[in-house]
Amino acid sequence: MQPVIITLTSDFSTGHFVGIMKGVILGICPTARLVDLSHHIPRQDVRSGALVLEQAMGIFPQGTVHLAVVDPGVGSHRRSICLSAAGCLWVGPDNGLFTPMLRADPKARVFAIQRTDLMRQPMSDTFHGRDVFAPVAAHLAAGFPPSELGAAVSDPVLLAWPQPQVEEDRLLGAVLGADIFGNLMTNLTREILNDFLQGAPASIRLGKISLEGVSAAYAHAPSGALVAVYNSLDRLELAINRGDLLGSMGFSPEQAFGLEVVVERPKTG
Amino acid sequence: MQPVIITLTSDFSTGHFVGIMKGVILGICPTARLVDLSHHIPRQDVRSGALVLEQAMGIFPQGTVHLAVVDPGVGSHRRSICLSAAGCLWVGPDNGLFTPMLRADPKARVFAIQRTDLMRQPMSDTFHGRDVFAPVAAHLAAGFPPSELGAAVSDPVLLAWPQPQVEEDRLLGAVLGADIFGNLMTNLTREILNDFLQGAPASIRLGKISLEGVSAAYAHAPSGALVAVYNSLDRLELAINRGDLLGSMGFSPEQAFGLEVVVERPKTG
Amino acid sequence: MQPVIITLTSDFSTGHFVGIMKGVILGICPTARLVDLSHHIPRQDVRSGALVLEQAMGIFPQGTVHLAVVDPGVGSHRRSICLSAAGCLWVGPDNGLFTPMLRADPKARVFAIQRTDLMRQPMSDTFHGRDVFAPVAAHLAAGFPPSELGAAVSDPVLLAWPQPQVEEDRLLGAVLGADIFGNLMTNLTREILNDFLQGAPASIRLGKISLEGVSAAYAHAPSGALVAVYNSLDRLELAINRGDLLGSMGFSPEQAFGLEVVVERPKTG
Repeated sequence: MQPVIITLTSDFSTGHFVGIMKGVILGICPTARLVDLSHHIPRQDVRSGALVLEQAMGIFPQGTVHLAVVDPGVGSHRRSICLSAAGCLWVGPDNGLFTPMLRADPKARVFAIQRTDLMRQPMSDTFHGRDVFAPVAAHLAAGFPPSELGAAVSDPVLLAWPQPQVEEDRLLGAVLGADIFGNLMTNLTREILNDFLQGAPASIRLGKISLEGVSAAYAHAPSGALVAVYNSLDRLELAINRGDLLGSMGFSPEQAFGLEVVVERPKTG
Repeated sequence: MQPVIITLTSDFSTGHFVGIMKGVILGICPTARLVDLSHHIPRQDVRSGALVLEQAMGIFPQGTVHLAVVDPGVGSHRRSICLSAAGCLWVGPDNGLFTPMLRADPKARVFAIQRTDLMRQPMSDTFHGRDVFAPVAAHLAAGFPPSELGAAVSDPVLLAWPQPQVEEDRLLGAVLGADIFGNLMTNLTREILNDFLQGAPASIRLGKISLEGVSAAYAHAPSGALVAVYNSLDRLELAINRGDLLGSMGFSPEQAFGLEVVVERPKTG
Repeated sequence: MQPVIITLTSDFSTGHFVGIMKGVILGICPTARLVDLSHHIPRQDVRSGALVLEQAMGIFPQGTVHLAVVDPGVGSHRRSICLSAAGCLWVGPDNGLFTPMLRADPKARVFAIQRTDLMRQPMSDTFHGRDVFAPVAAHLAAGFPPSELGAAVSDPVLLAWPQPQVEEDRLLGAVLGADIFGNLMTNLTREILNDFLQGAPASIRLGKISLEGVSAAYAHAPSGALVAVYNSLDRLELAINRGDLLGSMGFSPEQAFGLEVVVERPKTG
C-alpha cells in the first residue's frame, strides 16, 4: 500500500507553524507523504485559499488528504469539517474554503469534526491547525473513516462564486483572483469562450484596459504588452508579458476579485 | 523501524542552501524524513532561532534530530555541538541557540562535534550547515551515537532568558519575541497569570498600550482591536486582531525583545 | 532499491505551482523523494537558475533527477530537453539553464523531450512545469530511459560564461551572481588565485571598492566591514560582514553579473 499524501495549505507564510503541524502529523501517521500546496495565501483571505485548493482537484492521487487552514474565525463557534469530495478528503474550518469542491462534486459528503479524542490536548484557542486539523488529517491518512468524525453537515458555508453570463453580443465574466505574478484569472473557460465566439475574434475589456484576441502563449506577445491567454486551468487569464498587471492597476488581490471582464464578438448583420 | 525525522531550522531564507543541505543528508541517510521547521529566522538572530526551536519540543516524535543553523560565528572558534535533550537530538553551533532545551531538561547531555571523518571534505569556512551540521545530523539519524561525536561539554553557551517576577500587586514579564503576524509573545504563562490573579481580572500594560482582561480567542475582539490571548504555547500574547501590533509600534522583532509587560490586579482592601 | 530523489528548481516563488508539480509527480512515481532546491530564482533569470543548479552538482546522490523550470520561452518553439550529465539527469527547457553541467561534463548526453504520451493531456501553453517537466521527471525517476525521450540534441543552448584571464600582473575575473544576502560570487576559484598569487598577498578591486587579502571567514572581519572569502564552492566571494554588499552598491543581481573583479599582486623587481 502506498503511503497517503497529506497536502498542507495555509496563510502561515514563512513562520514555523507549518513545521509544527508536520511534527504533529508525523507523530500520528509516520508514513504520511507531506506536500506543501501553498502557505502564502493572503492572510485570512478565504477566497484566495479556495482558488488555490480548486487547482489541486484532479492533480493529486485519489485518497489524498488536503489540510487547509485559512481561519479568521479560529476560537469562535465556526465548525471544523471534513469533506469527502472529488476522490479526496478535505479538512479545515467551515468558512467557505471548500466552496469549489462542494460546487464541483454534487455527491460531496461533509462531516463535522467533533471527536475530541483525536485532537491534541490541551487544545489552544488560537492554533487549531496544530491541535485539530493536523491530528485529524493524520488520523484520516492512517485510515480513520471520515464518517466517524462527527455529525453529517448539510449546510456547509459556501462563498459567492460569480458565474459567466451572456447578454446579447456580450459575454460577462469576472476576475476570480490574481497569482503571485500579478496575472488575473477569470471565471471564463476556453469552452465558454469558444461557445460564445463561434470562431469570431474576441474583444476583451477589463475596466479601462482592452485587448484583441487570445494568444497561444505569453511568449507570443512582446515584453511588456497586455496579453490574454488560456492559463493552465483553461481559464482566460489577463496579463502583462514579463510584467505585473495587478500591480500596474494598483490593486491588491482582494480588490481585483469580481472586477467585470467583458468579451465582445463583432456584431453580425 | 520508522525512518528518523530530521528537522531543519536556519536563517537561510529563500536561497538554495537548504536544498544543498538536504542533498548532503540524503546522500548519507537516504531514509531520513526531512521537515523544514523555519528558514526565516531573522538573519543571525540566535534568540529568535532559540524561540522557534523551543516550540518544537514535545511536538516531534522522540528520537527526532533537530538541525539548526543560525551561525554568525561560522569560521571562528565557536564550538559545534550536539545535545541529547527532551527526548531528541539537537545539532548546531554552540552560541545559545539551544538555551530553551538546556533550561527545560536538566539531564541534557552536550557533546562537542569533533569527528572530522563525519564531516564533508574539503570543509569550507563559510558553510558549516553543509559541511558539518548536515552530515553529522544524517549520521545521527542513521544511528551514530552522539556520545562518540567528541568530548562532553559542561559549559554550553546560554542566552539570557528573562524570568517573570512578582512585585507586590504587579507581575512583571517581558516580551520574548514576535511572530510573523506581529503578535508579541511574552514569558508569562497561563499558569503564572492564574497564580497571580487568583480569579481577579487582569490589567495589562506594554509601554503606552494598556488593555483589560485576557480574551478566549482573537475572534472575540473586533477587527483592529488590541487583544491579549493565551497563545498555542499557553503564553500570554499581545496582538491586534487581524492587524500587526509590532509593526504599529514601529519596532523590529529584535527591538521588541525584553520590553516590559506589567500585569496588575485590582488592589485589595 | 532506494527511492529516486527529484529536486525542483524554479522561479515560481511562493505560489502553489510547485505543490501542483509535486502532485503530478507523486501520481506517476509515488516513491519519489522530493527536495526543493530553490523556487526563488529571480523571475525568468535563466543565468541565476544555472548558477543554483551548478551548486547541486556533486552534492546529490548519483541518479538524482533535477527538474528545473525557469522558462521565459514557455509556449514558444524552444525545445524541452533532458541531460544525462555529472551522474544525474537534468530536465527542463533548452535555454541555457544547464550550461554549467554541459561545461563540467564533456560526456554529457542531451535528448529532446518529444514523447507526448508521457506528458499531461490536455497540455497547456503556459505551464510546462506541470504538463511536461514534472511528468517526464517522474517517469525518469520510475526508470524510463532518457535516450527514449526523443532525438539526441547536439547543439543545446549555452549561456556566455565568463572565464578568468591573466594580464601581466593582474588577474581579471567577473562577478557571476549574488546570493540572497547580497554577497557577490566571482568566477575566481581558490586554485586560480593561488596559482596567480604564489603566496603573495592579494589586492582586490571591484569598481570603486578595494580590499586587501582574503579572510579565512566572515567572522574574522568586523561587523560592517568589506571582506573577501572563499565561499562554500571555493570561489572568491566579496561581501560586507553582516551586511548586504549588493544592496549597498545599489545593484540588482542581474546588474551585478559580469562586473569586473581585478586581483593584483605586489609588483616584483
